[in-house]
Order: sequence, then structure tokens, then C-alpha cells
Amino acid sequence: MEKVIAAAILLLLYCQAAAARTWSGGTRRPPMPARRYTSPLPQHRQHVVTAGAGAGGMSVPAMVQYETRHYTQRLDHFNSAPSSYATFQQRYLINSTFWRGKTSPIFLYAGNEGSIDLFSNNTGYMWETAPRFGAMLVFVEHRYYGESMPFGGSKAAAYADAGTKGYLTVAQALADYASFVQSLKGNLSAPEAPVLVFGGSYGGMLAVWMRLKYPHIVMGAVASSAPILSFYGLADPYAFYDRVTDDFKSESKHCYEFLRKSWAVLDSLIATKEGTALLKSTFNMCNGSSVEDIPTLLESAVVNAAMTDYPTESGFLTSLPAYPVREICRAIDADPSSGDKSHPVLARVRAAMGVYYNHTGGAACFRGEEDDDPYGMYDGWNWQACTEMVLMTYGLRNDSVLQPPWPFNFTDVVASCRNATGLPPRPYWIETEFGGYDIGNVLKRSASNIIFFNGLRDPWSTGGVLKSISDSIIALVEPKGAHHVDLRFSSKDDPDWLKQVRAKETRIIARWLKQYYSDEAIST
Amino acid sequence: MEKVIAAAILLLLYCQAAAARTWSGGTRRPPMPARRYTSPLPQHRQHVVTAGAGAGGMSVPAMVQYETRHYTQRLDHFNSAPSSYATFQQRYLINSTFWRGKTSPIFLYAGNEGSIDLFSNNTGYMWETAPRFGAMLVFVEHRYYGESMPFGGSKAAAYADAGTKGYLTVAQALADYASFVQSLKGNLSAPEAPVLVFGGSYGGMLAVWMRLKYPHIVMGAVASSAPILSFYGLADPYAFYDRVTDDFKSESKHCYEFLRKSWAVLDSLIATKEGTALLKSTFNMCNGSSVEDIPTLLESAVVNAAMTDYPTESGFLTSLPAYPVREICRAIDADPSSGDKSHPVLARVRAAMGVYYNHTGGAACFRGEEDDDPYGMYDGWNWQACTEMVLMTYGLRNDSVLQPPWPFNFTDVVASCRNATGLPPRPYWIETEFGGYDIGNVLKRSASNIIFFNGLRDPWSTGGVLKSISDSIIALVEPKGAHHVDLRFSSKDDPDWLKQVRAKETRIIARWLKQYYSDEAIST
Repeated sequence: MEKVIAAAILLLLYCQAAAARTWSGGTRRPPMPARRYTSPLPQHRQHVVTAGAGAGGMSVPAMVQYETRHYTQRLDHFNSAPSSYATFQQRYLINSTFWRGKTSPIFLYAGNEGSIDLFSNNTGYMWETAPRFGAMLVFVEHRYYGESMPFGGSKAAAYADAGTKGYLTVAQALADYASFVQSLKGNLSAPEAPVLVFGGSYGGMLAVWMRLKYPHIVMGAVASSAPILSFYGLADPYAFYDRVTDDFKSESKHCYEFLRKSWAVLDSLIATKEGTALLKSTFNMCNGSSVEDIPTLLESAVVNAAMTDYPTESGFLTSLPAYPVREICRAIDADPSSGDKSHPVLARVRAAMGVYYNHTGGAACFRGEEDDDPYGMYDGWNWQACTEMVLMTYGLRNDSVLQPPWPFNFTDVVASCRNATGLPPRPYWIETEFGGYDIGNVLKRSASNIIFFNGLRDPWSTGGVLKSISDSIIALVEPKGAHHVDLRFSSKDDPDWLKQVRAKETRIIARWLKQYYSDEAIST
Repeated sequence: MEKVIAAAILLLLYCQAAAARTWSGGTRRPPMPARRYTSPLPQHRQHVVTAGAGAGGMSVPAMVQYETRHYTQRLDHFNSAPSSYATFQQRYLINSTFWRGKTSPIFLYAGNEGSIDLFSNNTGYMWETAPRFGAMLVFVEHRYYGESMPFGGSKAAAYADAGTKGYLTVAQALADYASFVQSLKGNLSAPEAPVLVFGGSYGGMLAVWMRLKYPHIVMGAVASSAPILSFYGLADPYAFYDRVTDDFKSESKHCYEFLRKSWAVLDSLIATKEGTALLKSTFNMCNGSSVEDIPTLLESAVVNAAMTDYPTESGFLTSLPAYPVREICRAIDADPSSGDKSHPVLARVRAAMGVYYNHTGGAACFRGEEDDDPYGMYDGWNWQACTEMVLMTYGLRNDSVLQPPWPFNFTDVVASCRNATGLPPRPYWIETEFGGYDIGNVLKRSASNIIFFNGLRDPWSTGGVLKSISDSIIALVEPKGAHHVDLRFSSKDDPDWLKQVRAKETRIIARWLKQYYSDEAIST
């Protein structure tokens, strides 16, 4: 049994779609939520064929204008062997339109696990705030993602084997950013320009750690939805899915109860010929996709809707209506089967999936198999998640909205990662390197100028810093907020609480800058 | 000319004694102080044959009692390639005699560039203070020094080539200490035990950087004579030897003037057959050593006497009288040639060298050639000093006590290191990784609990932090102090200022611990 579980997790970590397909109709669906949510970024790929929409269905606001440049980056900062001196071209995006000169701020986005344009296009707060502060905008891409590939520039070479992938670590990425900033400021002849680092999700973790490890390089960090405490020994491993459960429960008890039971219905249908036929006639699956993918698709929809439960229409990774959890529950709680001959449970499941996968109405069919990865996230993140970034989000309780339950077993997590990478994972390393235990007492004596934003709808907030630590290490906690909602472009429909969060962040940044200029005796 | 200089520095970096021998009598002595003082540790080897004395002539106080243990350490903390998972046995010395239990302090010495027993035996302050605080004492050895050799445990394998030596970096050493402390506290079931890190010289730099990078692991640092600002762009490259000059000038103008002129006299004598004969008859050189080594020996004596100008007899690396600078000048200013037929300049030089190299009177002859390296310092440090730890101590002014002048030329320093290691040195890296620029403003907002002790007699104090930064980042500056004198064993002959410095350090540590216990709500 242990072997089966480990193999299942392995597959999930490396190939989610394939995992769905490996399920065999006659047995119980292997419990495998682990793999799907190892990335702080919603693990959603293009599940639907959309008509003419760009990746994620995202439209890029007109103000997002930048030059693309490259920095020659060292391969290994912490080793002096000749091979460490190899370099690669690290991509960054830069906009100097608003910059008022040598002592004006530089807003740096610490790129996370994907192509950097995903983050430049979705971090509207930086674009909208730069003019007020006269800030330069710089978005730097994380090594091994997007176009920033070591070993010659091709992804194939960078990801050739464990030896080449070995340089994909958090500490190297942070040192990249530190070296890059030093060089940038040198080129600008602006040694006194204050640098503020921003990031959401894993990028938010990088922003925090950047401020902790390189306070001489970044004078403050805005870390949005950064689950820096989602590690073994620090986090409750059930908390992540508990929050997803709570999100649905809070919206509608009926919806929660329906979803809880739906997996068993789907599983039992998949287990029979007649059931499979019924599923086929109810769900219009794309060519190459199978009805066996439906449980996984529903699971992704539920988790990602909770994570990105934004108060306005959004297109971060897929096009979604405002409050997608509410919309999914509305679809379920309505009676979509009336006037429809299909199975009443399936009609509701289909309607729920339609909210998540076909908000624009342009999807011709449901696609379960995912080979596309428009932002180049999966290969890198799956490696990181099984070497250093072993996030504790694995447990499903008996009453979880996702079923069946999945008791947390650390040994299994470690073993499955070991199988996946061929290397022992290092689940304690992040805490050794960056801390976490007793974080309040530690940081109040050794850090300053950090904003921790967390929205409590977001399951990742269960690993976030939710209490202010000092007058400059400030937790902004928004009960109605979702995954880094504060950093998104503003909208005329934004609720007041969201406007207020952003205004608070801007006031805090202004205070940090004022103090910085006072410390440095720079008149502004 | 440039080629000649570069080659000379190369030799000095790698083999100081050899460099002395490569000087050819007919040409001007190549100016090469650079290599000899690249280590914050006095670069003194056993220059004399002492009668029955141990390494450094040091006697170990009876209270230095410990168990030797080993920790299985990871080869590369910042890389996930399979080769990074290799391990080595890191030596540490431990004494639990005074430890009062799980919430009592751990005093950790951050081993520097040498066998760990050198530091355990010479850091008396830790031994003498542990009982008062109920502290456990732990001295951990730096990778690539002493017995802590990667690649199987032999020095030959660890130092085989640039590839194996590549793992000898500061960041890896700090991560070693962090991992080690986490493991130690885990084994002790003492997660709340406050860890205070101590270090002198390069060990002091490690202690500071440990507190800056791992504040969640060490709650305070006592950094003695830590030249963390001796890097390019931060330090005046002439300041180091200026301080040596000032030390001798302040003792005796005559002595300073004599020494300044003595190099030319020695050089001119070495240049002729008659002069060489005179040198041979005046200096009893050991077999295998040459009179051409004399200028280098005198230079080492001058610089190391300034550095270790302790107020009591000492035996850190060699046996020395109290106030060796004064004693050298007394020997010079007296007229040792009366009743002696030797050259009056040479008699004084010989007397001066006798103070430094033959304090115990047991030396049979002067030894210029140095193949012995009792603490295993040189191979490792020369590598570090030319890869990352490119300390700016190279310039000699026209009026320097050491002659001839040696104008600072950064390009030459870089080129000579490149020649020495075959790799480009990284003179900016330490500042990128650990900061230094604008250190006061940076640390007052992002750090706490650091003592910077510096004695102003010590030329390394020119790269030290000499101003307090906050009420818990405290510079203790002692005009009469030498290289990490505060950390040495106390003596009944200690002057009041030294007693007071140590008492201040103890009071500050007590305050940090009190605050820690209060923060943690631990009753003591």
C-alpha cells in the first residue's frame, strides 16, 4: 500500500495530468492532492480550449510597458570551483519612466516560479504606485524559469539532469537578485537609491528572505501571501485544505456537503461501464482527455477558486468571475438539472466546473490532459518542491471538502520526493537557512521594514505571518482577501477593504522611505 | 615589470618562505608585503627552532578540557546536485561541565582558518566566563582546516585542485555552523537554549556574519578584531601598514627611523659578496635558511609584533614578551653593538629579531624557510584570500616603517590573485553578500546584539567597526589593545583597561541574555 501511495505522489509531483490518467477505473481513486498544490501559485494550467484568449485568458493593461534586458549572472555564488564561474543570461524587465533620479526608489519584483511577464503583468500595485514615489520598476526573472536558463540558455540543457538542476535553489536565486541589484545601481551611479522588494506567493517568500538576508541591498519588503511558515514543524499540515473547506462551508453548507459527496459519486461512476458512458455523455471532454480526469479537474477548480477568490473578475491564470467560490456554489445550489435529462449530481458538477473552466463561455470542451505550461512553471517548481521547498500542505481531514481523506504522513512525503528526484529532500533546510521557529521574537530583534499581507480566504495564508511583530514588521490580514489580491491591478469594482489595504501599504512604504532619507540625510 | 610584481605576489601568497628565497642578491628586493599579511591571523610560522616548546610555544591552561566529537556535515548547502549531498566529518570540541540545562546558554566559537585547538586554547574569555553564565562551550572547526577535511578526510584530497577547493567559502562555513547548531540543539532537546557566537580575527568576521545571516540561530555575537570593512571600496588600502608604522613611531621615533632605513642596508649588503659574508657571520641562520630571508623575517617580526602587542607575555603563535613592540624598540634603541665587533645596524636588527623569534632564549638559529604550518592555516587561507576574502591591506606609503614603498594597485592585486588560483578573484562579493557600505544605517535597522571589540594597536582595527551603531550593537575600542586581546586568558598582570573591557563584555552579554529570557518568558 505504501508503495502505491508513494508512486501516486511521485506521478502527481511530476505529471499531474498523467496521474489522473493512471487511475484505474476498478479501484478507489488514489488520494493525491499533494502534488497538485505544492506550488504557492495556483497549480492551474489551461484546462479548457479558449477561443482566442492568451495564456490564462489574461489581458495586459496598457500601462505595462518595459524594456527587456539581460544581466550576466554567475552560476554558483557560494562555490569557488571553476564550474561555478559559468554564467547565464538573466532576464529582467525595466521601466524608468517614473524614476526621478539617483536617490529615487527602485521597486524590484523578486521573480518567482514562472516566466517574469506573468508577474509584471499581474503586479498592478507596483505599476500604479511607482508614479507617486518616482520609482523605477524592475522585474527580475528567477533562474531556471522563463528565458533565464543556465547551461547555454535552453531549457533542455538547464533541466538535463540532477547535476544541472542542482543550481536551482532559493539561496542562489536570492544571491542572483543581490548581485543584480548591486550591478544595476552601479550602472545607474545610484548607490543611495533605496530598493524596495515586492513579491507574491513564492515571490513574497523571496521578498521576505531578501530583506532578512540582504538588508544592505533592499531597504524594505512587501511580501504578499508568502507562506514562509508552511514548513515541517512550523505548520499544521492539515491547515491548507481546512481553509479550502472553510471557504466553501462559509459560502454554503449545501454546496460543501454536495462537493464532499461528489467525489464518491464520480469514483463509483468511473468504476462501471455504464457510469463511464454517463460521464461521457454529460461532460464534453476534449480529444485526448478522459472522464477519469474529472475528479482531478473538480479538485483543481475547488482549490484554485479558493486561492484566487478575488472580489472582481480576474485573469491571473485563467479567466474567472468575481468571487469564484460563491459562483461555484451558486451553480451547485441552483438546480441545473431541471429540464435536463442528465444525472442530477453530474449536472451540478458540470455546472461548477463550467464556472472555473469556462467563465468566458468560449470553451469547446473540458481538457484533462495538460502538457502545456504557458509560464514554464512545473518542471522547476516540482524540483524545488521536492528538494528544499517541501511545503506542508498534504493532509486532508475526514470532513474535508476534498475526499477521500488523506492522513498526513511525513515519512511518505519524504519517500515520495526521494523517489521523484532520486535525492533525499531537505525538509528542514529552509528553516535552518531562513528561520521560522519563534519568528516574532527573532525578527523583532533582527529585522525591520516588512509588510506581510495575507488574505484569509487564501489557503496559503495558513503559512503566513498574521501578527505584526514590530512597528515596521507589519501583518496586514484581510478576512475577505485571497492570494496576493493586494498586488493586483486595481479595478473600479474593488471593495473598500481592498482599497484600504493598498492605501495602508502605500502609507507604510512612504514612512519607510521618509525614514531612509532622514537616516541618509538626503533631502527630498 | 608588471609581470615581475605579479609573480612575486603569487609566490608570496602561496609560499612566503619560497618567495624570500627567490629574491636574487643582485636586484632590489621585490616589494611583497601583500602576501605575508593576507590573513587576519598573524602570518607567523615557527621561525625559530625552540627547545622543546609546543607549536607556537603555547602552554595550554589546565581548565581547557573538552571532548572531541564530529558532526556529519553536508558538502554544499546551496546546491541540490547529487555531488552536493556528499558529507564530511566536521570536528568540534565540547565542554558541558558548566551547563545548567536546556535553557542555559551555549557559547559557540566560530572556528577560523586553522586547527580548532588553536582557538579553543587561546579563547580564555569563553572558558573563564562560562561558569558565570552556566554556559556550554563548543568550538567548531572551519571546513578545510584542521581535521575537518571534505573528500574523504585527507588534506591532500580536499586540496587536490580548484574543483575540490571550491567548497571552501565563507557562506558554506556559516551554513555549516548553522546546521551544526540546529543539530546540536536537537540532540540536546534544547530548542530554547540561547546561542552566543564568539570569534576573533576572521573568526570574528564569521561571528558577525553569523549573527547577521542566522539571527534565528545565534542570539548574539562577540566579534573581536573582525576587519569586516577591510574590503575594496570600504577600506583605505594603506591604513593597515600605516597603523604598524604608527605603533612603532609612538614607541620611539628613533626605532621607527632605524627600521625604515634598515631594509635598504640589508638589501645593499645582500647585493654584495662581502655583505653576504657579513650577514652570515652576524646572523646564525639555520641549515637550509639563507641570509636573503632576513628582510622578510624582520618584516614579519615588525608586523606581527604590532598585531600581537599584548600587555603580558603571550604564546599565541610564538612566545613573546609583554609589549613586544616596545621590546623590539628597546633592543634597537639600546646599543647592542658595544663590545661587539659586528656591523652596528646589523647588531640592532639581530637584537630586534631576537625579541620576536627568540624570546624564550631557546632558539639555536634563525630559520627563514618555512615548510611547517602547525595549525594548517596557509593552504586554505591563501585560497580564501585570493577568491573571496580579498582584504585590502596592500599599500605601503613612502614614510612606512616597512620599506620600500608599495603603491596600492588594485589591478595588480586582482591579476596576481588570478595568477595564483587560476580563477578571477571576486573582490566585491563579500560586500554583496554581507554588506559594509553605510553599515551604521543598515545595521541599526536590521540587526542587534553584536559586540565589536577592536584594539587600536592592531593594524586589523583599521577594517573594524569602531563606532557603536545602536544600544545593542556596541563598539568597544581600546587604544592600547592588540589583536583580539579581550578574548585571551586573563593574567594577574592584565592592565585595568583590559579587565574593564572584559567586564563590559560580560555585562553586555548578561543584558542580552536577560532580554532573551524575558522575550521568551523563561524564568531563570
